[in-house]
Amino acid sequence: MGKLFDIVLLILILVSVLIVMLESVTAINSKYHQYFLVIEWVITILFTIEYITRIIVVQKPAKYIFSFYGIIDFLSTIPLYISLIFFGTNYLITIRALRLLRIFRILKIGRFIGEGNQLRKALMESRVKIFIFIFAVIIIAVIFGTLMYLVEGEESGFENIPVSIYWTIVTLTTVGFGDIAPITAVGQFLATLIMILGYGIIAVPTGIVGARYFKNSKEDFVHVNSQSCQNCGVSKHRDDAKYCYNCGENLYPNNSSNQ
Amino acid sequence: MGKLFDIVLLILILVSVLIVMLESVTAINSKYHQYFLVIEWVITILFTIEYITRIIVVQKPAKYIFSFYGIIDFLSTIPLYISLIFFGTNYLITIRALRLLRIFRILKIGRFIGEGNQLRKALMESRVKIFIFIFAVIIIAVIFGTLMYLVEGEESGFENIPVSIYWTIVTLTTVGFGDIAPITAVGQFLATLIMILGYGIIAVPTGIVGARYFKNSKEDFVHVNSQSCQNCGVSKHRDDAKYCYNCGENLYPNNSSNQ
Amino acid sequence: MGKLFDIVLLILILVSVLIVMLESVTAINSKYHQYFLVIEWVITILFTIEYITRIIVVQKPAKYIFSFYGIIDFLSTIPLYISLIFFGTNYLITIRALRLLRIFRILKIGRFIGEGNQLRKALMESRVKIFIFIFAVIIIAVIFGTLMYLVEGEESGFENIPVSIYWTIVTLTTVGFGDIAPITAVGQFLATLIMILGYGIIAVPTGIVGARYFKNSKEDFVHVNSQSCQNCGVSKHRDDAKYCYNCGENLYPNNSSNQ
Amino acid sequence: MGKLFDIVLLILILVSVLIVMLESVTAINSKYHQYFLVIEWVITILFTIEYITRIIVVQKPAKYIFSFYGIIDFLSTIPLYISLIFFGTNYLITIRALRLLRIFRILKIGRFIGEGNQLRKALMESRVKIFIFIFAVIIIAVIFGTLMYLVEGEESGFENIPVSIYWTIVTLTTVGFGDIAPITAVGQFLATLIMILGYGIIAVPTGIVGARYFKNSKEDFVHVNSQSCQNCGVSKHRDDAKYCYNCGENLYPNNSSNQ
Repeated sequence: MGKLFDIVLLILILVSVLIVMLESVTAINSKYHQYFLVIEWVITILFTIEYITRIIVVQKPAKYIFSFYGIIDFLSTIPLYISLIFFGTNYLITIRALRLLRIFRILKIGRFIGEGNQLRKALMESRVKIFIFIFAVIIIAVIFGTLMYLVEGEESGFENIPVSIYWTIVTLTTVGFGDIAPITAVGQFLATLIMILGYGIIAVPTGIVGARYFKNSKEDFVHVNSQSCQNCGVSKHRDDAKYCYNCGENLYPNNSSNQ
Repeated sequence: MGKLFDIVLLILILVSVLIVMLESVTAINSKYHQYFLVIEWVITILFTIEYITRIIVVQKPAKYIFSFYGIIDFLSTIPLYISLIFFGTNYLITIRALRLLRIFRILKIGRFIGEGNQLRKALMESRVKIFIFIFAVIIIAVIFGTLMYLVEGEESGFENIPVSIYWTIVTLTTVGFGDIAPITAVGQFLATLIMILGYGIIAVPTGIVGARYFKNSKEDFVHVNSQSCQNCGVSKHRDDAKYCYNCGENLYPNNSSNQ
Repeated sequence: MGKLFDIVLLILILVSVLIVMLESVTAINSKYHQYFLVIEWVITILFTIEYITRIIVVQKPAKYIFSFYGIIDFLSTIPLYISLIFFGTNYLITIRALRLLRIFRILKIGRFIGEGNQLRKALMESRVKIFIFIFAVIIIAVIFGTLMYLVEGEESGFENIPVSIYWTIVTLTTVGFGDIAPITAVGQFLATLIMILGYGIIAVPTGIVGARYFKNSKEDFVHVNSQSCQNCGVSKHRDDAKYCYNCGENLYPNNSSNQ
Repeated sequence: MGKLFDIVLLILILVSVLIVMLESVTAINSKYHQYFLVIEWVITILFTIEYITRIIVVQKPAKYIFSFYGIIDFLSTIPLYISLIFFGTNYLITIRALRLLRIFRILKIGRFIGEGNQLRKALMESRVKIFIFIFAVIIIAVIFGTLMYLVEGEESGFENIPVSIYWTIVTLTTVGFGDIAPITAVGQFLATLIMILGYGIIAVPTGIVGARYFKNSKEDFVHVNSQSCQNCGVSKHRDDAKYCYNCGENLYPNNSSNQ
């Protein structure tokens, strides 16, 4: 029963996302618009039932409503209802944005994958390093972007510093659209530096995530600390050591009870 | 004899694939089309003989026919025969597709490389993680693709959501063709986010495969310690060694019972 | 108090960098130029006060002035003052360069991140390998760049060898702008070689930094073994442990002399 | 003295390579052609002296001449002399190729870097894996290239299968020039598959080289093998073990002398 519900939900999500996509293709939408609208209303009503049921069933409704999946469920339900309010008005861009909001329904799939996997853990534990890395990338982009703006100027498409920074990130991350490209010799030399830099520092996120992965897979190693033994002076004891591994002396003589 | 057969087969495969390629080059095909046709028939007949021989020789013909290489061998043999059926008709696209089917003959080379290598094993063992990774990439592409469609619109080449998702994957994987590129400030800012995201999560497959590699290469290793043998003086014994690996001396002569 | 100073400084830096960027956008600058100028002078005066205060407060002023952050602080202060000298003159490019010099203020943020992090250490220790790697990339680029120039020639945009080397680095680092692209069959074959080479050697910086990371993260770990304590039964002691880390019992009671 | 010789040689190499580059820039060459020619002859004569001296000084001249650096030294010396033979003739392309041959002089710098470094070793030991990897990339490129040719056709720039394979490698290696890009929906979907594939398998070279690096950095581990002890049956002894680590039994009782 619960299994059937899951499969139906999964199909609804995928159909819903598919319709959002197809609606944006003019040729398809002009032909099947009526069908899409009907299916959309069916799905919206089913999602509404699901959302209300969850609030009723769940023990702490407030906690659910403001949880990640609570907000996703709400955003998956509301768009069509709000679009009724704007019915007949000309706020076309608002209605369009509202309709596209339905794409976030795809996040409902997250429920079927299971949180707390190793990758998520590795990313969470490395968040400080990742922040510093992104920060370093931004600083490099700001400085080189400004230099490129100075060197290449507006004639080569480096219209202003924000665009120039955008181009530097395009280059640094090795994407390289080619919509903007340096044409002066100095600009091409600077671009070379940026590219080699980007090619090299791609190693950093790999190193960060890889090191976490590796750490998780380690089972035969333990953390040691810098605590020295008062009797024989050796250090690098296990983090949870109470006695010196070398001479058997109590490492924390004064608080042996709570250590 | 078997060696000679292998070399002949390898040459036939390579010649066959080369002809498929060259036939597609108009200038070359118009000149040598007759020669290509003759060689093709010779190769097809030889592959037919090979295929029939394999079925006869193999102990379980049914198992071979539906195996990976059985299907490849069949697909390598059949195209020219089917094209005879369509001879004189105008199903040009079908004939073209049939002829190109011959390119799969290149997979016959797989026999010469040897299956079950470490890489294949690493990939198979990581298939769940790889699936989750690809799934995450798709979710990111769907959401950012829809946002880019909303922000940039049809004027910048983001014609509809599927095209917009295609562009997001082009950017996220750091390919960056540049056939479509954002032109509004908000679009370029979003593109920057996608690029940095793509630049960062490239670490994930590396981490996944790398961790497997590491794990596989660990299986042949054991921990050793610095314990020296009292008899011959060598060290680096297994952690749980009781006797010297070099001279057979008891490593812990006085407490052999509790080690 | 020191905390408040830090926050004010951080905001000043970010506002200052933002203004440099916005000034380059013609539409924004023409509207708000006067406001930008006023804010700039306020920030310049505050940075001047900060710079002078640091010189007075610091114990060794000379050491500070020629330190990394000393130079950055000086460069963050000076631009507006120098631009006064050129006031009324037509050295527009000089003034423009001077104004953009202010972008280096972003490096002042470095103070808030903390030096000597693990990444910096890993990079410093691997500098010889990184140098050899960059050197190898340059040699590959010079040779393949020259070959591409010879093969493709000026018609395809490979105007001269420096441009051709620039293109090779664009390709080798997998950036691929597409402003220049090979059109002859031989050129495209050479390009294929360069791309596969670039795709492969991206592993090298990853390997270099990864290995350092691994080494650094190993320093806080020691080998443990499966030896159990006779008294309390815990295992995973350091390889060279003589006494139990948990209860202080002699691990090898009978041969404490030769362990 | 030897040090001075090295520095002079290094400068000569760099000047020589620089001149080859600058000669290709029309604007510079038309101005300084005479100077370049003079410097070229001076460098050629010095390299001739170096080459002859090496042959005389070296103990086994034949071995030197056909060694890597022997061939490089020869190629660095010969171009200008051969160009004399063609003097006055119209074999312009030959002369041009000859002149560009001088770019290989940059490989002479290899002498100053020192061979046999860790990276080279890691690459050599992984050559089978690297070959299989490149082979897999080529098979993927051939099959997807043919599919793209079938799907997109000549209208989108996929003129023939070789060009289509070239495009697939451009995409698979995440270079993405954008000179050719799919325009049909099916083509863009196939391109998406190629990109995600390329984004994923970039992990493989990293894994290969990384694993070798890691293996080299291992010092606390030893290889074990599957040999079982005849007395107690345990296996995973050190590769060079003569006696069982568990019971002290001779592992190879019948050939204890030569093991």
